[in-house]
Amino acid sequence: TAMIHITRRERFNAAHRLFRHDFTDEQNLEVFGKCSNPNWHGHNYELFVTVKGNIDDNTGFLVNLKSLSKIIKQFIISKLDHKNINLEVDFMDGKLASTENLSVGIWNELNPQVRQLGADLHCVKVVESENNFVEYYGS
Amino acid sequence: TAMIHITRRERFNAAHRLFRHDFTDEQNLEVFGKCSNPNWHGHNYELFVTVKGNIDDNTGFLVNLKSLSKIIKQFIISKLDHKNINLEVDFMDGKLASTENLSVGIWNELNPQVRQLGADLHCVKVVESENNFVEYYGS
Amino acid sequence: TAMIHITRRERFNAAHRLFRHDFTDEQNLEVFGKCSNPNWHGHNYELFVTVKGNIDDNTGFLVNLKSLSKIIKQFIISKLDHKNINLEVDFMDGKLASTENLSVGIWNELNPQVRQLGADLHCVKVVESENNFVEYYGS
Amino acid sequence: TAMIHITRRERFNAAHRLFRHDFTDEQNLEVFGKCSNPNWHGHNYELFVTVKGNIDDNTGFLVNLKSLSKIIKQFIISKLDHKNINLEVDFMDGKLASTENLSVGIWNELNPQVRQLGADLHCVKVVESENNFVEYYGS
Amino acid sequence: TAMIHITRRERFNAAHRLFRHDFTDEQNLEVFGKCSNPNWHGHNYELFVTVKGNIDDNTGFLVNLKSLSKIIKQFIISKLDHKNINLEVDFMDGKLASTENLSVGIWNELNPQVRQLGADLHCVKVVESENNFVEYYGS
Amino acid sequence: TAMIHITRRERFNAAHRLFRHDFTDEQNLEVFGKCSNPNWHGHNYELFVTVKGNIDDNTGFLVNLKSLSKIIKQFIISKLDHKNINLEVDFMDGKLASTENLSVGIWNELNPQVRQLGADLHCVKVVESENNFVEYYGS
Repeated sequence: TAMIHITRRERFNAAHRLFRHDFTDEQNLEVFGKCSNPNWHGHNYELFVTVKGNIDDNTGFLVNLKSLSKIIKQFIISKLDHKNINLEVDFMDGKLASTENLSVGIWNELNPQVRQLGADLHCVKVVESENNFVEYYGS
Repeated sequence: TAMIHITRRERFNAAHRLFRHDFTDEQNLEVFGKCSNPNWHGHNYELFVTVKGNIDDNTGFLVNLKSLSKIIKQFIISKLDHKNINLEVDFMDGKLASTENLSVGIWNELNPQVRQLGADLHCVKVVESENNFVEYYGS
Repeated sequence: TAMIHITRRERFNAAHRLFRHDFTDEQNLEVFGKCSNPNWHGHNYELFVTVKGNIDDNTGFLVNLKSLSKIIKQFIISKLDHKNINLEVDFMDGKLASTENLSVGIWNELNPQVRQLGADLHCVKVVESENNFVEYYGS
Repeated sequence: TAMIHITRRERFNAAHRLFRHDFTDEQNLEVFGKCSNPNWHGHNYELFVTVKGNIDDNTGFLVNLKSLSKIIKQFIISKLDHKNINLEVDFMDGKLASTENLSVGIWNELNPQVRQLGADLHCVKVVESENNFVEYYGS
Repeated sequence: TAMIHITRRERFNAAHRLFRHDFTDEQNLEVFGKCSNPNWHGHNYELFVTVKGNIDDNTGFLVNLKSLSKIIKQFIISKLDHKNINLEVDFMDGKLASTENLSVGIWNELNPQVRQLGADLHCVKVVESENNFVEYYGS
Repeated sequence: TAMIHITRRERFNAAHRLFRHDFTDEQNLEVFGKCSNPNWHGHNYELFVTVKGNIDDNTGFLVNLKSLSKIIKQFIISKLDHKNINLEVDFMDGKLASTENLSVGIWNELNPQVRQLGADLHCVKVVESENNFVEYYGS
């Protein structure tokens, strides 16, 4: 049977701010630019979760996409959608709210869940804007 | 000479929250749902500004798009991009930060500026997400 | 208060076939081309519903988009998604399953529902492919 | 029977330059900016042709989209695709190669052809980039 | 000379149904959900074919994209477009009509053809909806 | 710390022509088709630059995207935007102006610059149209 990659897109809208507590406002502005605005800003994020594994001949599926979507919504989207990434997301606690760290955080949350579906997590891709995105492959 | 419509797209990323000061948190949640989150959320907004008028035979232009883009950036994008719509945008002061009110506010700011370019403002379209957008034609 | 247009996008995947019972297969093929395939084909349809009216100063909304989305899902999407437009959709019964007729049928279903939300239906737009779409304004 | 609008998208890739023969290079640069580059530049243009009319009860169509597409390709795309708009397009001869003039030129070419299909041309929309587009309604 | 990947997109609209002959309707509904509808549903599929190899210094090409497009249309699109994947597609005969199996089937059809062009097939990507896609790399 | 890929999109509009000086017009037409038009044609190109490396714990960044964007604009976009790829782009001098060669040329220009940012160039992707794109990974 064939090894296949399948990708599910989900979306969330969130607020965030890039800054360090141990920086002055001037230092934050210098390093993080307008992304350090103390009053926050936000994005329509797109999340692409790619899993891999063999096709199950009984169903023609790698995994049931409904199950994959349900897991992503339960463990990721419900924590991020219409939330403040700096203040309200447990798996981002104490981390800089960058797209890079967000991708790693999402990977760590999803990885054990995807394994329970009988597949391997291959890539977490977070699209912050039409011009910027981050991909994390787990190492 | 022909009457033409020309549209320029610009983008901004902002935080906002839908709520009323005179509502309790429960009332805000009931009316505005997750959009009332006190810790804010945000969007990648797209703004489409459509102006109309006759083609200038000397240039083949209705308006110089560079001038139109400059005006939109100066009077709108610079005030909204990486900002908090509830707290930092002068022309939204005292208004509910809905996409509907935002469209009307942008129209009122842009209208006199577009007239100085020798064109008429026709439509302000604000896209909040791939599923929702508002259009305002000025009346 | 300002008159505004707001648009909600919903999606459905459906099968259909363009043909007339009173035509032979050859006649159907001549008029409708490959769209007349007796074994059906299908599309990812996008539906854009635009409503208009005045902004409610109490909420900043024209209509609550959650309510609009709920109505579209209940009266339209639930009847079309993963269905056969020729065989299973009550409001298309006895009609040619063209995008043109589909747009009119959706308008007729939605119009009384939108009115109950306190807004006016302005446009039903059905996108059949990236190259083709139909708009119906109700007359 | 219902009045409907239907839109067909076609695409073409072309070179052009914005300039006036009676201007010096410096004047052209001042008015048209980098678009006046004497060595040309180009775009992937998208053309959206919207026609309107009543649905034909015999077919469920306003017009056969294959016929509409064929006309657009024969009278417009074949003249513009992989061409130089300034040098090779008969209906742009002697005109500034702006998107505004292009929209009017396309309208004038298509209008009699669409009428022969039994429909009315409603709008010619030319998209020059993801940030700029022009619409012409014929007057 | 450099090793390069080049991708060609083609599209097809098809009907399908997910089900097993040896399941009852209830079992099919439980495993495949609304995708098991006996009256079919359908999609606008996008197919991205990626080939790899060295640039030919005589042409600047890896392969002539017109030839690649022609092969994809002849061996894949003509068999799938406006067809029923379960009933009419020879290379899907006896297989569950899942996007996973479709990707593998398309790979097996295209692989010998791409080799005759002097390139290697690298990836077949089938996009079923804006939220779901499958990639197959041939093993 | 985690190894991450981050991608920045930039855009440019350019004219080009596919042809060989040592071919007759007929030979060029036979090999390159309408892309060999002596009067040029053009495209809205999209450039996706992917870099990889470890997240900097002090900033949460792999690289500052503003710096990456600045480098791409200085070394690539300023040379290509609103230019003629055959006549005006130093790093394409003497090469066939194919998307394949363009990708390799962009890689060679960007690679030393990305290294100075403390990251590794991973992929240069050039999108010529919605149906065609090339990826180069540097070997």
